[in-house]
Amino acid sequence: MNSTDFDMHELTRSLHQKNDSKIVLLVADGLGGLPMQAGGPTELEAANTPNLDALAQRGICGGSIPVKPGLAPGSGPGHLALFGYDPLRYVIGRGALEATGIGFELGPHDVAVRGNYCTLDVSGKIIDRRAGRIASEESAPLADKLNAVKIPGVEVFVRPVKEHRFVVVLRGPGLGGVVADTDPQATGVPPLDPLAKPGSEKTAQVAKEFIAQSRKILADQPKANGLTLRGFAEKPKLPTYEEVYGLKAAAIAVYPMYKGLARLVGMDIVGKAQTLTEQFEVLKQNWSKYDFFFIHFKYTDSTGEDGNFAAKVKRIEELDAAIPQITALNPTVLIVTGDHSTPAKLKSHSWHPVPTLLVSDVCRTDACQKFGEAECLRGGLGLFEAKYLMPLALSNAGRMGKYGA
Amino acid sequence: MNSTDFDMHELTRSLHQKNDSKIVLLVADGLGGLPMQAGGPTELEAANTPNLDALAQRGICGGSIPVKPGLAPGSGPGHLALFGYDPLRYVIGRGALEATGIGFELGPHDVAVRGNYCTLDVSGKIIDRRAGRIASEESAPLADKLNAVKIPGVEVFVRPVKEHRFVVVLRGPGLGGVVADTDPQATGVPPLDPLAKPGSEKTAQVAKEFIAQSRKILADQPKANGLTLRGFAEKPKLPTYEEVYGLKAAAIAVYPMYKGLARLVGMDIVGKAQTLTEQFEVLKQNWSKYDFFFIHFKYTDSTGEDGNFAAKVKRIEELDAAIPQITALNPTVLIVTGDHSTPAKLKSHSWHPVPTLLVSDVCRTDACQKFGEAECLRGGLGLFEAKYLMPLALSNAGRMGKYGA
Repeated sequence: MNSTDFDMHELTRSLHQKNDSKIVLLVADGLGGLPMQAGGPTELEAANTPNLDALAQRGICGGSIPVKPGLAPGSGPGHLALFGYDPLRYVIGRGALEATGIGFELGPHDVAVRGNYCTLDVSGKIIDRRAGRIASEESAPLADKLNAVKIPGVEVFVRPVKEHRFVVVLRGPGLGGVVADTDPQATGVPPLDPLAKPGSEKTAQVAKEFIAQSRKILADQPKANGLTLRGFAEKPKLPTYEEVYGLKAAAIAVYPMYKGLARLVGMDIVGKAQTLTEQFEVLKQNWSKYDFFFIHFKYTDSTGEDGNFAAKVKRIEELDAAIPQITALNPTVLIVTGDHSTPAKLKSHSWHPVPTLLVSDVCRTDACQKFGEAECLRGGLGLFEAKYLMPLALSNAGRMGKYGA
Repeated sequence: MNSTDFDMHELTRSLHQKNDSKIVLLVADGLGGLPMQAGGPTELEAANTPNLDALAQRGICGGSIPVKPGLAPGSGPGHLALFGYDPLRYVIGRGALEATGIGFELGPHDVAVRGNYCTLDVSGKIIDRRAGRIASEESAPLADKLNAVKIPGVEVFVRPVKEHRFVVVLRGPGLGGVVADTDPQATGVPPLDPLAKPGSEKTAQVAKEFIAQSRKILADQPKANGLTLRGFAEKPKLPTYEEVYGLKAAAIAVYPMYKGLARLVGMDIVGKAQTLTEQFEVLKQNWSKYDFFFIHFKYTDSTGEDGNFAAKVKRIEELDAAIPQITALNPTVLIVTGDHSTPAKLKSHSWHPVPTLLVSDVCRTDACQKFGEAECLRGGLGLFEAKYLMPLALSNAGRMGKYGA
């Protein structure tokens, strides 16, 4: 924790109340966009979205600033903020996020670290920090081999990620997460030793042993004959939705990363949906069992990352067409937003505020007629930090008591 | 103090300057509202307010967020914020607020606590936590009887509030305010002992003695034969208006709670007005004696709490009609706002931003034509936290120096 902003959980913890309301948070990943040409529409503005527009007319709109103005967040802080966790206060270490991203469920005694295969010369100096970006088909079997590493008193899990990347999870008592990277960020030098800060000496020792055994296993590999470790991290300690909001929460996501992020805040992962229709079917099936539903839609982000404006527009329209499946359930509060913007023009996450709408019977409806970046600027939520969405959701659901007498 | 947000008083303390300007803060309690039906006007929008509209045209408007987005405040934090005191940093304990609310002026060595009469069975277990919500006429004389409690070295004041509620003030050296509630929040168990945190042991001891003597006095009461104590609190330590702003400030309020809150920040309570016309008469009489005037109008809140949309509209129109009595005095800065919203639709305080206008010769006039929720969204103040109104008032009055060279 490193932020000095006020932590809203100090209040939501004591002020939350229970009732029968249902809250739906629909996250279209990377929703916000940019015009491809000056004066043109954004992806969301170009899309034909009659259902979202109807919600914008009934509800209140605004622009969500994922973390702070000018900051493009990754998926971790982007989602933590939407979940109401100050993304500057709660930081998920790289190793833990990588493990989460491949669906590895971290335990309380785990330390996770991101590994890179590299190419070493005969003297042990790094020639290529990414082992020639070795193909996933070649690198995946290597992770299996590294699982053979045996260290007394510690369980070791090695899982492939993509190309030269992998994840190592060390499980055992007394492991701290504060160990320096072994990647020297340069070639012509050997990997560094894992150096510990106080409390993490055992982790450093275990890591050293892991590296030594791995080097032997990899010794005859043509490209991936070495490795570096980056971003040692314990499982982040996040309070749960039940504790800070009194909400029994379910996550309906397709990709492991988002299931993992939801699991970190204590949501149940429900269903095995692969499509939007299946996701909403899972929503319906679980409607009576939970107070809060996080639904994640990935493809507005991936099409943005691809720089494919037209494909992103299509994905937004696909989402819009599915909206009646949510509204048919008559949620008390429905929020549609994104964790950040991913303009096709930039092919990357960006800092731009994210179009956001909130619908409830007690929201103060504004003049917005369509769901889009320009219209949201006229909205009653104004520009706001994403971390305030959850207190707003709770209040609109009648789930927050008064602060002070 | 428990907030970690930046405290503007760190700047206003050193940057404030003196001049002959006059600032008027007119607080229409619970001013903000909601439409009763979708698409309809709010109370303020429905009201005919030519004078406030003229001010909105001359001035700058916006939406005041009492504490943080999504948070509905009580009167205490709502007013502290308008007075420029971070409502998360300065917390008025329940006992102190109750005492303030009935006009009991707390001294520096006082600990105040809220009492509830309860009904005990023969074994001393609580049967009814509110003594059957005993009528005020029955309970008021009991407070008088409890004033007979004598504790060496400590003065004891017992004052009736409403129904089963009363206030106890303990006055004496060495009393700390950190004592746990004796209300077990349950029936079928006896009241708890008052347990102290370090520094408040004497208070706990005194409270125990107070309870013992009171039990004897109440022994033969049919309903109120016992009592519980909640919210022990010292007089909150708030810096004064003179210290943080260099302002000689007066409060013109009808209800004890608001006089009390103003007194806590060092305002003088002037006049004995009972009506709006009398309040503005008091304003005129004291115009030359003060730099700053806080005027409190209660009925926009009470009609909202009653759920009476039409009555709230009428009260707003009543306020509007009296505005010329202020403008005739030609204040340097005039602010009209509320401490929170109290939509008739919700019959309670709410989290919705409060319509706010500020008029001065140096404000940057915006496009707002009418004073109302929707128009204020277009305003030049945007959505802002209420605690920034005082720095804005000081600057508009030429009372703030430059920060840094």
